[in-house]
Amino acid sequence: MVICIKDNDVTSAQITRARHAHTEASWTFDELPLQLGGSFGPVTLAYETWGTLNSAGDNAILLTHALTGNAHAHDIEHADDPRAAWWNPLIGPGRPFDTERYFVICSNVLGGCYGSTGPSSLDPTTGRPYGLRFPLVTIRDMVNAQRRLIEHLGVRQLAMVAGGSVGGQQALEWAVTYPELVRKVVVVAATAALTAQAVAFSEVGRQAIMADPRWQHGEYAPGQGPEAGLAIARMLSMITYQSEEGMEMRFARQPARCQDTTAPSGHTAFGGTFDVESYLYHQGETLVKRFDANSYLYLSRAMDLYDVSSGHASPEAALRRIQSQTLFIGIRSDFLFPAARVRQLAEQVSQLGGHAAYVELDSPHGHDAFLKEWEQMAIALNHI
Amino acid sequence: MVICIKDNDVTSAQITRARHAHTEASWTFDELPLQLGGSFGPVTLAYETWGTLNSAGDNAILLTHALTGNAHAHDIEHADDPRAAWWNPLIGPGRPFDTERYFVICSNVLGGCYGSTGPSSLDPTTGRPYGLRFPLVTIRDMVNAQRRLIEHLGVRQLAMVAGGSVGGQQALEWAVTYPELVRKVVVVAATAALTAQAVAFSEVGRQAIMADPRWQHGEYAPGQGPEAGLAIARMLSMITYQSEEGMEMRFARQPARCQDTTAPSGHTAFGGTFDVESYLYHQGETLVKRFDANSYLYLSRAMDLYDVSSGHASPEAALRRIQSQTLFIGIRSDFLFPAARVRQLAEQVSQLGGHAAYVELDSPHGHDAFLKEWEQMAIALNHI
Repeated sequence: MVICIKDNDVTSAQITRARHAHTEASWTFDELPLQLGGSFGPVTLAYETWGTLNSAGDNAILLTHALTGNAHAHDIEHADDPRAAWWNPLIGPGRPFDTERYFVICSNVLGGCYGSTGPSSLDPTTGRPYGLRFPLVTIRDMVNAQRRLIEHLGVRQLAMVAGGSVGGQQALEWAVTYPELVRKVVVVAATAALTAQAVAFSEVGRQAIMADPRWQHGEYAPGQGPEAGLAIARMLSMITYQSEEGMEMRFARQPARCQDTTAPSGHTAFGGTFDVESYLYHQGETLVKRFDANSYLYLSRAMDLYDVSSGHASPEAALRRIQSQTLFIGIRSDFLFPAARVRQLAEQVSQLGGHAAYVELDSPHGHDAFLKEWEQMAIALNHI
Repeated sequence: MVICIKDNDVTSAQITRARHAHTEASWTFDELPLQLGGSFGPVTLAYETWGTLNSAGDNAILLTHALTGNAHAHDIEHADDPRAAWWNPLIGPGRPFDTERYFVICSNVLGGCYGSTGPSSLDPTTGRPYGLRFPLVTIRDMVNAQRRLIEHLGVRQLAMVAGGSVGGQQALEWAVTYPELVRKVVVVAATAALTAQAVAFSEVGRQAIMADPRWQHGEYAPGQGPEAGLAIARMLSMITYQSEEGMEMRFARQPARCQDTTAPSGHTAFGGTFDVESYLYHQGETLVKRFDANSYLYLSRAMDLYDVSSGHASPEAALRRIQSQTLFIGIRSDFLFPAARVRQLAEQVSQLGGHAAYVELDSPHGHDAFLKEWEQMAIALNHI
């Protein structure tokens, strides 16, 4: 139990509640059956919670994170700093995910590298990192692991599951796989399945990682991984998380403002003079310090392989299962998960008899708008 | 002189003309002053011509090729096969670039690897490939080299310059730099300067090449180059040459139809099952066999650095120099050189007193539509 208190602007009663309101922990269970066959274990999930579960066990909100995210959705100590946690401004007393009313849970996904079991975890049978012996996990596997976690925490029914991007895929999968366990679902910037273009970008990034000789077929020692490859993959994904419009507003053809960034290859004979280039180098450098390359391979592939219809007779058969009230949030300038496809998904759920709303963020910031447009996100979340 | 004759469907008079109508050659001159300073030489340009120059020397059309293109714009022997040469269906008797009326010229650009001097050419002072000792060349340098070539060929004034993508940048540069030498200019899928997003994609590809240990700071032996890096760069660029819409029509989430392609890294643990992935592997493999990695670095950087206003007081000052009749062709689904920006450029030329038309190809095929939409291209070319 880690206790984080923001001690200004709150009453002493709030401080007392907050003192017990934040948990940072992990929990391990033995075995998880996997969607693609077989089972895997032991599985540890790192998680955080904010607020208190009620006695009925039905006021929990599960937040599901994006590709390189983690369980730290909210930071009590820096509650007003959007950079301190990924959905920080949306979580807390009186905020859309109200920690006074709800027990908010966020766990690092299966396959991740922020405390949950993933390819960089030590295989107890060998004492070495799993590497590629880690199984190909899917969005459904992540959701099944989360289900085990919420049961462990005493949750009987989720008031809501909400997430963006790969987190949105998880939220959608919750609605389809466990309709009776979720009252409301918020799917942000995610669709029924990735487009060919998005899969293509994804595979280019993975090839860059695996082409790096330091990747060693996944058998690199901690800290000795394919940094150049991962940085290149990140540079590419950062383009796909933005938009032409947003990048033009932010960078256009401005010269590099930051000179102390290092290109993935170490070479800038043909680049680095534009601001957008040094910005991308910086993004690459930053990710390499905080993320495991094998996790990137596994999680990006789970994103690609996700198809809401998997294991169902048709997409309609899958979507017809949804009983939750659903809110789909698209982003006008998102080209990774195009708004038109998010809207189409909402319409399909509605046509199949489900309760679905669609809200579009009018943002130039592309896919990442769900991590930037706080006011619009808060307004959108009023629709559920 | 290489003579190629298509001997069916033509009259014997046409055969006679055709017999003398195709030249494949190269020409070398001593020295070229460079835009970024200094000068470089000797410069060899590989070129092809079709048709006959008139005595006034004013019926020549110069076609300018795209990033990985070459001088082989037309193939007399396979005149009806679009894959035999890059603008094949648009060139020939009675076609938009009518070889009965015009002397059509196409040369491989300075910096290329199809016979013109580039980084893979042997430096006469060392007997070894230039590698990174080759200077950073610009679109203007390419145009200046082309100017030397057309003078050598006896051309006094060009009837037209036409090209797409990087070729479109060259065409625009011709109009601005040598207004008195060009009567008509066709700029296809090119803009006044690349967007931040396009520069960003470009630099990701270059980083992939330079991160490949076989790149060796450009000092690889012929055939020993950074094949994985170049293949990854090509995979990425092939995405940017298409569109979400087009890729969805062509690939969607279809399983791989072609199993005998090799991924750049040699690893497909996390990919290769979708058709779009094996298609991109194939594109990577194909480019590696035909293109030099250093040329890719130099030419893609020339594309990024191109800005019509370079060396002029403003973009307006540059565009005001244009005297040619101009046609700008945008592509609805192009996100590398967005149609809105091509149109804006045409409008700007027009507002500044120039003679400019704009036509938009209604194609889902993205940037590459100028190499695919033959009917629409032919109709568009009627507008000049």
